[in-house]
Amino acid sequence: MTGTAEARAARIVARLDALFEIGRAAGTNRPGLGEGEQRAHELVAGWMRDAGLDVRVDRGGNLFGRLAGADPDAAEVWTGSHLDTPPDGGRFDGALGVVAGLDAAEAILRSGGARRPVAVVAFRLEEGPRFGRGVFGSRAVVGELEDDEAGLVDADGITLGQAFTALGLGAALPDGPTVERRPACFVEAHIEQGPALAARRAPLGVVTSIAGMAGIELVFSGRRGHAGTVPMELRADAVAAAAGFVRAAHDAARGLPGAVATIGRLDVLPGATNTIPGEVTAFADLRAPDAGTLEKLIAGAVAGGEAAAAEAGCTVAVVPRWRYEPVAMHPEPAGALRRAVAAAGLDPVDIASGAGHDAQILAEAGIPSAMLFVRSDAGGVSHAPEEATGIDAVAAAVAVLEPAIRELAA
Amino acid sequence: MTGTAEARAARIVARLDALFEIGRAAGTNRPGLGEGEQRAHELVAGWMRDAGLDVRVDRGGNLFGRLAGADPDAAEVWTGSHLDTPPDGGRFDGALGVVAGLDAAEAILRSGGARRPVAVVAFRLEEGPRFGRGVFGSRAVVGELEDDEAGLVDADGITLGQAFTALGLGAALPDGPTVERRPACFVEAHIEQGPALAARRAPLGVVTSIAGMAGIELVFSGRRGHAGTVPMELRADAVAAAAGFVRAAHDAARGLPGAVATIGRLDVLPGATNTIPGEVTAFADLRAPDAGTLEKLIAGAVAGGEAAAAEAGCTVAVVPRWRYEPVAMHPEPAGALRRAVAAAGLDPVDIASGAGHDAQILAEAGIPSAMLFVRSDAGGVSHAPEEATGIDAVAAAVAVLEPAIRELAA
Repeated sequence: MTGTAEARAARIVARLDALFEIGRAAGTNRPGLGEGEQRAHELVAGWMRDAGLDVRVDRGGNLFGRLAGADPDAAEVWTGSHLDTPPDGGRFDGALGVVAGLDAAEAILRSGGARRPVAVVAFRLEEGPRFGRGVFGSRAVVGELEDDEAGLVDADGITLGQAFTALGLGAALPDGPTVERRPACFVEAHIEQGPALAARRAPLGVVTSIAGMAGIELVFSGRRGHAGTVPMELRADAVAAAAGFVRAAHDAARGLPGAVATIGRLDVLPGATNTIPGEVTAFADLRAPDAGTLEKLIAGAVAGGEAAAAEAGCTVAVVPRWRYEPVAMHPEPAGALRRAVAAAGLDPVDIASGAGHDAQILAEAGIPSAMLFVRSDAGGVSHAPEEATGIDAVAAAVAVLEPAIRELAA
Repeated sequence: MTGTAEARAARIVARLDALFEIGRAAGTNRPGLGEGEQRAHELVAGWMRDAGLDVRVDRGGNLFGRLAGADPDAAEVWTGSHLDTPPDGGRFDGALGVVAGLDAAEAILRSGGARRPVAVVAFRLEEGPRFGRGVFGSRAVVGELEDDEAGLVDADGITLGQAFTALGLGAALPDGPTVERRPACFVEAHIEQGPALAARRAPLGVVTSIAGMAGIELVFSGRRGHAGTVPMELRADAVAAAAGFVRAAHDAARGLPGAVATIGRLDVLPGATNTIPGEVTAFADLRAPDAGTLEKLIAGAVAGGEAAAAEAGCTVAVVPRWRYEPVAMHPEPAGALRRAVAAAGLDPVDIASGAGHDAQILAEAGIPSAMLFVRSDAGGVSHAPEEATGIDAVAAAVAVLEPAIRELAA
C-alpha cells in the first residue's frame, strides 16, 4: 500500500461503507455467528488475499490474515478487532480496527516486511446482545469458552452451538486455545464510543485500562391478574418491581465515580396490555473502572432490586451472566503506540476504556495488549446508526498504527 | 335440556374444558379473529345446532344461536359473551357466559319456548391485547367500529383487516350495525375476575355499573449509546423515563378511590443489553369507577410521564388508543336477575365491574343491558391459567340465568 495517510483513510472509510451495507436496516445488523458477520468475514478475507496476506480461519471461526516475518521462529504481532455488530449498529465499532489493521499490515508488506510475522485478526461475536455473552472469539483464542456456552439461546431460539455448526465451523465448540502459539502482543484500534477525545480535540488516545463489567439478570415474580379487577393494594405487579430496580441501579451508578448502569432490555410476561404482569426479567449491564467500585455497584443494584421486589409484593431471583475484571494495558505495546502518536506530532492522550473489548480478554489472559482509541464524533454515540468518526481521525490512526506495529515487529 | 342445576353445571364445565384445550399452552390462547377463536366458534356452533337452535354469523363474525319466539314481531332477548382469550388465559373468562347462555336457551326451548325470540351470542375479539383495542364484535353490532380499525396491527405484523378477511368474513369490515334490529335487552353472565364475591361468600352478584377505562401509549424518546462509554450524567435513557412513569401511574391510581393502573407491556428499543435504550413505548391501561375519577387518573399518569421524561432528559409523546365511558346497568334486565337470585334463595349482592365487557358497549349504545357476575376463586386471578370458579357457583348461575331470561322473554 502506498499513498498519503489521507488517501489510505479514504480507502478505509470506503471499506467501512461496504461492510455497513451488509445487514443494513436503520443501522447495520451483523449479529455474531450469523449470516451478516459471515459475509463480512468473507469480504475482508478477500481484501486480505488481495493484499497478499495468507488467510486462515481458526477453530473458533476467527479470521487471520498473515504476513510472514523474516525470523520464522519469532512470535507474531497481532492487530485487529471484530466484524459483528449489535442490532442497528454503526459503521466504525469493531470494523475500523480490522480494516485499519489490514491497511497497516499491507503497508508493512509493501515496504519489505518485518522481523516478526504480523497477523490481522477479526474475532468472532464480540458483541453481547445476541446470546447474552460476547467476546466469544477472543475467549476461544485463549481457551476460555465456558461449559454452558453452546447452550446459550438467541431471541429466535437458536443456540450458540447451532449457529456455530451452521457456519461449517465444526460439530462442537473448540476445546482449549484455538492457536498453537500465543502472539508476542496485540494492538487493537477502536473508536472511543464516547465524547472524551472530541472534548479534548484529540483524534487519538492510548488506552490505559479497560473497565470491569458484569452482566446480571434480575427475574421479578409477582402475580398475574386482570387489569380491571384487582385493587392496587392487592397487586403483586412485576413491572412495578422492575421499575423500582431500574431507578435503584441508576442511582447506585450515579453515586460511584466512573460507574455506569444500563438496563437495555426488559422482558415482560405475559406482555398483554390488560393483564397485570406476573414476571419481568431485567437485563443489567454494570461497569466500573476498578474492581472495588464494580463490587459496590453490583451490591447496590442487587440490594435495590431486592428492596423494589419487596415493596411491590414480588420476589426476585438474581442471575449473574458474565463478568470481566478491569485490566491495565501492557506498557510495551502501549508505549509503542505513545511513541508513534508523538512522532506523528499529536498529543499523547491517555484514556480509560468504559467499553469492553477483545483486548481485555487477551490482556487478562497474559498477552501484552494495547488499544488505540480513535475519536468518536456525533457526541460519542455508538451502537447506533449515527456512529461517526471524521476522516481526519482515521488518517491519524493510519499514521500511528503502522509505525507502532512496525516497532513491535522489529 | 333437563337435569338438576348440578348436572347442567357439570356439562357446562366439561364444555369449558373442551374450549380450554383449543390453543392450549401454559393457559389457553385464542386471540380474537385468530385460528383459536375460530375453532371455538365452530365448536360452539355445533353445540347450538345440537340444541336445536338456528345458527347464524353476522357481518362482524359474531355467532348467534336463535330460538324462535311465539310472537314473531317481538324483539329478541340476547344472552352470551365472547370466546377469545388474552395470551395464556383461563377457562372461564368469556366462555362461561356463552356456554351458560346456551344452557339457558336450550332449557327454555325444551320447556316450550317463550314469547320473545332468545339468541345466544358469542361476540368476536373482546380482549384488547392482540390489536391494542378490544370489544370488536359488540362494537360491530352497534355500528361503532372506527375508521382506523382495519389497519390495527398485531405483534406478527398482521392487520385486523387481514385477520378478518382470512376468516372469510368479507373483504372489508362491516359499515354500520351488523344486525337489522336491536335486541330488547342483553344479559351477560361472566366471572367476576376479582376477589369481592368470594370475600362475601356469595356465588353470584348483579352488576350495577361498569368502570370507565382508557388505553394510552406513552412513547419515550432518548438517545441510544454504548452501555460502557457514556457517563450517567450525559445519558438520555428511555428506560429511566419509562420506569419513572410506571411509578407515577401506579401512584396516581393509589391516590384515587377505586382507580387502577396497569402497565402490562413495555417495548424497549433497540432492546440490546449493551445499548442505552433510545426509545420505550409504555402501554397503560387506566380504569376508574366514574368519569371524574378517570379524568384525574389519566391527567395524573400523563403528568407523571412528562415529569419522568424531563428528569431523564427524554421527550414523550402521548397517544390515546381507546376509551370507554363508565355506564350503569339497566334496571329492567338487572331487576330480572335480582329477582331470580332472590328466588334461588341467594343474597342479591350488588357489585361494580372493574373489567370492561361487551355489555358495556351495548349499554352505552342504549340497549338495556345487565350482567350476572359468577364468583371467581383462587383469589380472583384472571387472564391467567389459574383462573378458577367452583362448580357450586356455576350451578347457581344455571339456577338464576334461565328464569331471568325467561322473565325477560315473557
